[in-house]
Amino acid sequence: MSTEGQVLTFEAMRLAGFITDALATLGLPEAEAAVCAARMTEADLRGIDTHGIFRLPQYCQRIRAGGINVRPRVRPVRENAVTALLDGDNGMGQVVVTTAIQMAIRKAAESGLAWVGTFNGNHAGAAAAYSVLPVANDMIGVYMTVANGNHMPPWGGVEPILGTNPISIAIPAGDEPCILLDMATTVTSAGKVKLAAQKGESIPIGWMVDRKGQPLTDPQRAAEGFLLPIGGYKGYGLNVVIGMLAGVLNGGAFGRNVVDFNKDFVTKNNSGHMLLVLRVDNFQPVETFKQEMDRVIREIRESKRMEGVDRIWLPGEIEFYKMRERREHGIPIALPVVEGLRKLAADLNLPDRLG
Amino acid sequence: MSTEGQVLTFEAMRLAGFITDALATLGLPEAEAAVCAARMTEADLRGIDTHGIFRLPQYCQRIRAGGINVRPRVRPVRENAVTALLDGDNGMGQVVVTTAIQMAIRKAAESGLAWVGTFNGNHAGAAAAYSVLPVANDMIGVYMTVANGNHMPPWGGVEPILGTNPISIAIPAGDEPCILLDMATTVTSAGKVKLAAQKGESIPIGWMVDRKGQPLTDPQRAAEGFLLPIGGYKGYGLNVVIGMLAGVLNGGAFGRNVVDFNKDFVTKNNSGHMLLVLRVDNFQPVETFKQEMDRVIREIRESKRMEGVDRIWLPGEIEFYKMRERREHGIPIALPVVEGLRKLAADLNLPDRLG
Repeated sequence: MSTEGQVLTFEAMRLAGFITDALATLGLPEAEAAVCAARMTEADLRGIDTHGIFRLPQYCQRIRAGGINVRPRVRPVRENAVTALLDGDNGMGQVVVTTAIQMAIRKAAESGLAWVGTFNGNHAGAAAAYSVLPVANDMIGVYMTVANGNHMPPWGGVEPILGTNPISIAIPAGDEPCILLDMATTVTSAGKVKLAAQKGESIPIGWMVDRKGQPLTDPQRAAEGFLLPIGGYKGYGLNVVIGMLAGVLNGGAFGRNVVDFNKDFVTKNNSGHMLLVLRVDNFQPVETFKQEMDRVIREIRESKRMEGVDRIWLPGEIEFYKMRERREHGIPIALPVVEGLRKLAADLNLPDRLG
Repeated sequence: MSTEGQVLTFEAMRLAGFITDALATLGLPEAEAAVCAARMTEADLRGIDTHGIFRLPQYCQRIRAGGINVRPRVRPVRENAVTALLDGDNGMGQVVVTTAIQMAIRKAAESGLAWVGTFNGNHAGAAAAYSVLPVANDMIGVYMTVANGNHMPPWGGVEPILGTNPISIAIPAGDEPCILLDMATTVTSAGKVKLAAQKGESIPIGWMVDRKGQPLTDPQRAAEGFLLPIGGYKGYGLNVVIGMLAGVLNGGAFGRNVVDFNKDFVTKNNSGHMLLVLRVDNFQPVETFKQEMDRVIREIRESKRMEGVDRIWLPGEIEFYKMRERREHGIPIALPVVEGLRKLAADLNLPDRLG
């Protein structure tokens, strides 16, 4: 651990151990607590700080309020060689979605391709932590989910009945880091708007509009407006389609029946998630494909840059280097977050691993 | 036919007949010419005028220049129960992609799910014309392709080595029109910028930037700038991923090896396309799913609207009503386009079906 300003730095293993302890204390089987810890720590390693250990107090609050089943029986209710629908039995999202992606990888290994959906799940954290798992097996991974809260209206509307519904796609490469897209279908997140408000900064045109559709740039007025989808009606359309594929198709929540997991800690979320896995060698010999991926990655990176731009990044590349750096030098956690975790440890009578 | 200002209106069947005649005269088997006509007329019916008969003179020019194989043997070079890689043999894109989606539908009917990719193809027109085909079989359709020309640089770059790379997703509904997303990953198209230039109008901030990244709003200066991706780096990431799934994975063109089909009529395009088809009843009984789709569609449509907004539209709904209207009242074609088609008919010694 090192201290620097308002940040404390921890080894990934230590954070993972803390998460595992906390969740196991609350009743999760040790192995499933460790699965949650692995997915959450992966988010922290990649720099997706909003989806890592930062979420632990909230998850624990939900478990203690009875909003999550700590001993779920995650099981297929429909299944064939290449598809399955899993009932998440209201388990931790990380457990449900990890089960789903592992099943999809097994099916794709046998058949070449698989689509596994889940319902009755919960918030699963960073999308990239799941889509990336097939890559180690020379497979492409796709993940979509319905966000656990609604902050965006339909295009032309003023009722926020849609979430940030993200999509993540991972594609193997050779010597280059794999391609790892992980994007919400909104221009920004409610969290970034809050941060600007705290800092007293204005937000750029294009992030939010007010109820009349006029640009809203004062984040203090955020409650009077809405997040915007990427590309206007296009991002709205993509958002809705993701909601239908990850939510409706699985019998999961979408639209008004989405539970805001930041406000309601008891009502079943019924989160829907979808996972698609494809073996690369259905289409190309693995090595040929990886060489070609490296070639196009380098072509893009080495193309002429705009004045003042130091580097062109591929999807997931910034997070790849962040992960490398944080594996070596540790994960910086903001002091208020650390304090929240220490309070949690005290509440749960855990050994003070963050001390 | 009716005349109104600079527009002539034709029945869809008549346009389809014209296209079939033209392509058959140039050597396509009658049945394959009719497939091209069906896909192109579908675009015109849906109001996607830039991807219908408007393209015929260009396609014919390419065929006559030897840039397209009119008698292709479209065949799988790799295949298993749920995937296939098709060699398009440099055939018309409409023929290649229709073959691919039909194969995907057959495989999905048997196995529940299928992913078919193609290389050695050409421009295939409107994405929605393919993704929608599985819907009649209660299946979900996904289509992605690499655009046949590059107008966008990587995020932070100034070399246009990326195209508009579109994605289309179709999802069955019940009494409601099916959901039919069809979107480029750029904010707008080069065509819309040209149109604004012709009309002497300025273009909105957000459509284009100049080589320094500053907003470009004068379409007369379009050559000094670039199209922007939706949502900035997000749309760029999605664009690249689509290029890799539809191009690289299939051994198709992506990046610098994309041929600009508006400038070069001879060099093989090697267009890559990908099709994914999923049976709804892997996950839900078809009727249950359709009812739930109708419910969420209505929930979105009937949510509170912004002042001045008459209606909230679902993806593909505007095009659905356009198609209904054009089936009944005909397809309006701009006079200069009609004149181009008449010239084509004269060149090819076709009966003047548009007279």
